[in-house]
Amino acid sequence: MRATTIHAPFDMRVQDVPDPVIQDATDVVVRVVRACICGSDLWAYRGESARQPGQRIGHEFLGVVEAAGSEVRGFRTGDLVVAPFVWSDGSCDYCAEGLQTSCPNGGFWGSAGSDGGQGEAVRVPFADGTLVKLPADAASDDHLLTALLALSDVMGTGHHAALGAGVTKGSTVAVVGDGAVGLCGVLAAKRLGAERIIALGRHTARTDIARAFGATDVVAERGEAAEAAVRELTGGQGAHAVIEAVGTEQSMRTAVAVTRDGGSIGYVGVPHGSGTGLDLSVMFDRNIALRGGVAPVRAYIPELLPDILDGTIDPSPVFDLTVGLDGVPDGYRAMDERTALKVLVKP
Amino acid sequence: MRATTIHAPFDMRVQDVPDPVIQDATDVVVRVVRACICGSDLWAYRGESARQPGQRIGHEFLGVVEAAGSEVRGFRTGDLVVAPFVWSDGSCDYCAEGLQTSCPNGGFWGSAGSDGGQGEAVRVPFADGTLVKLPADAASDDHLLTALLALSDVMGTGHHAALGAGVTKGSTVAVVGDGAVGLCGVLAAKRLGAERIIALGRHTARTDIARAFGATDVVAERGEAAEAAVRELTGGQGAHAVIEAVGTEQSMRTAVAVTRDGGSIGYVGVPHGSGTGLDLSVMFDRNIALRGGVAPVRAYIPELLPDILDGTIDPSPVFDLTVGLDGVPDGYRAMDERTALKVLVKP
Repeated sequence: MRATTIHAPFDMRVQDVPDPVIQDATDVVVRVVRACICGSDLWAYRGESARQPGQRIGHEFLGVVEAAGSEVRGFRTGDLVVAPFVWSDGSCDYCAEGLQTSCPNGGFWGSAGSDGGQGEAVRVPFADGTLVKLPADAASDDHLLTALLALSDVMGTGHHAALGAGVTKGSTVAVVGDGAVGLCGVLAAKRLGAERIIALGRHTARTDIARAFGATDVVAERGEAAEAAVRELTGGQGAHAVIEAVGTEQSMRTAVAVTRDGGSIGYVGVPHGSGTGLDLSVMFDRNIALRGGVAPVRAYIPELLPDILDGTIDPSPVFDLTVGLDGVPDGYRAMDERTALKVLVKP
Repeated sequence: MRATTIHAPFDMRVQDVPDPVIQDATDVVVRVVRACICGSDLWAYRGESARQPGQRIGHEFLGVVEAAGSEVRGFRTGDLVVAPFVWSDGSCDYCAEGLQTSCPNGGFWGSAGSDGGQGEAVRVPFADGTLVKLPADAASDDHLLTALLALSDVMGTGHHAALGAGVTKGSTVAVVGDGAVGLCGVLAAKRLGAERIIALGRHTARTDIARAFGATDVVAERGEAAEAAVRELTGGQGAHAVIEAVGTEQSMRTAVAVTRDGGSIGYVGVPHGSGTGLDLSVMFDRNIALRGGVAPVRAYIPELLPDILDGTIDPSPVFDLTVGLDGVPDGYRAMDERTALKVLVKP
């Protein structure tokens, strides 16, 4: 089959690789129908996260089961399924409590030795613990498929951020980060009943989506001017619930600054310097909590799926560029240059 | 009157200072009956927190109202009262929601221009928002007075840590820090229903108190050996709820290491390097939350007071040395040299 491989910073290729086959009785092989490129893939693309030359990449996909091992109970050939961005055994303590990202048998698509989502097919370990079945008729609904793909990462990650930030009915929320996860954080906060959602972002193409997703205010300033703007919008106090969806020192610094005393930061931006942006003395004096981390999206799919199926939420607008498999390298370039928000891949 | 003043690192004096008087109609003057020295006072004593020469010190006291301003409603001369370690106006948004430490009109006893608890009397601003009345008959009960004094800081701070750590019925808790706050964290965790409480500490005088307060296990190792011991006690996973009651880089590093994936650190140790001990990448991967900060003990006194009065909890064993006012400098020395755990002052 053909799949995307990464060889060095900025050197993405689409190559012939071995076809995936069932190795363990709990595996399935999924033919990828939709995949995408994640903002966090850019850390590898830019060489800021190490990869072995030739390693696969892509951790978001949905597709059709092509083969199933003898011990797979929940899936059979032909099923339409979505994969969360890590696989998990479905039977450990952590899986039982919905923290599948801590499963000791879990792993990340595209890690050395595994298939990545940005390819024609993927061997899925622990299929029963990992995958979630989608309605068969969704396969013929192009728009719905795109929305459902967001369940593999960004929608669940936005939801995790909103929970970490403590969003409930009536909350005032600030969202730091105008990428796909930040935007899904807006959508998740709205879904959880937030009354006021302040999106921080300068790109109108993105802030327009934020508004469509439920943002009531947009702050286009950056740094200290942004902090002042959020404070002004919140009676000088800041937002009780703050979503940090970038992972840099500056974004975390902004998140701390705009959080109301006693509030929480739900952080889901993969840390690339964000620890340095945490001023613990300030957080201590103001009783600001920090919650979040890598989102156990597998736990959230059953809750979020019905709302996508019935149209309550539609995260599909975060995808603004579509490529075929051969177009994946161009997709990376577009996201790196911020000419695309999130790239959809149709292999 | 006479009061403790700090002039330079390790230079504590007991001097004549002006008698406190009512300045605002919402003030009362409290004659101090019991005060104490806090582990956090040692940061000033050691010169690690700046103080102006001659500044007052001491933020924990209970006593008798000696004079009351014309607008004070809740207290009158002769009332026995306990003060939390900050004063607060009782009328702002933050006070209304129980985060009195963020009151814009609040302040810390011993800050420049205010009286400190380690003296004969204290002018208390916003008495109605700050003080809590104690039963009159407690005044003649030496043991009870000592226990009630813990409401001014350490018992409420331990409770705040336990809440931040997410302690509930059946929790497994690890407590980093064997000072008075850590020990009160043990007591608070027990009170909240924790099933297993692992106290980290090497000093048997202290760990004996921890056991009396409800610790089921004591880990005497330090650093990585301590982390390994806690993991061994918890099936390799760590504790869901962890109390950090020191504030140093090492204590926070230990706290992160012994927290179970998906768990929370309730931190109340005043940060002196603890931010550096937070490895955000580890916390991200393991979904470890950080909650806590300066404890709004005013909010907790009404909840904790009845339990002290009826003997459900008795934090008094944390006081292991008693001095008169003139003995305060000796008390600092004893706590600095760790020959005393917490020093009670009877002016």
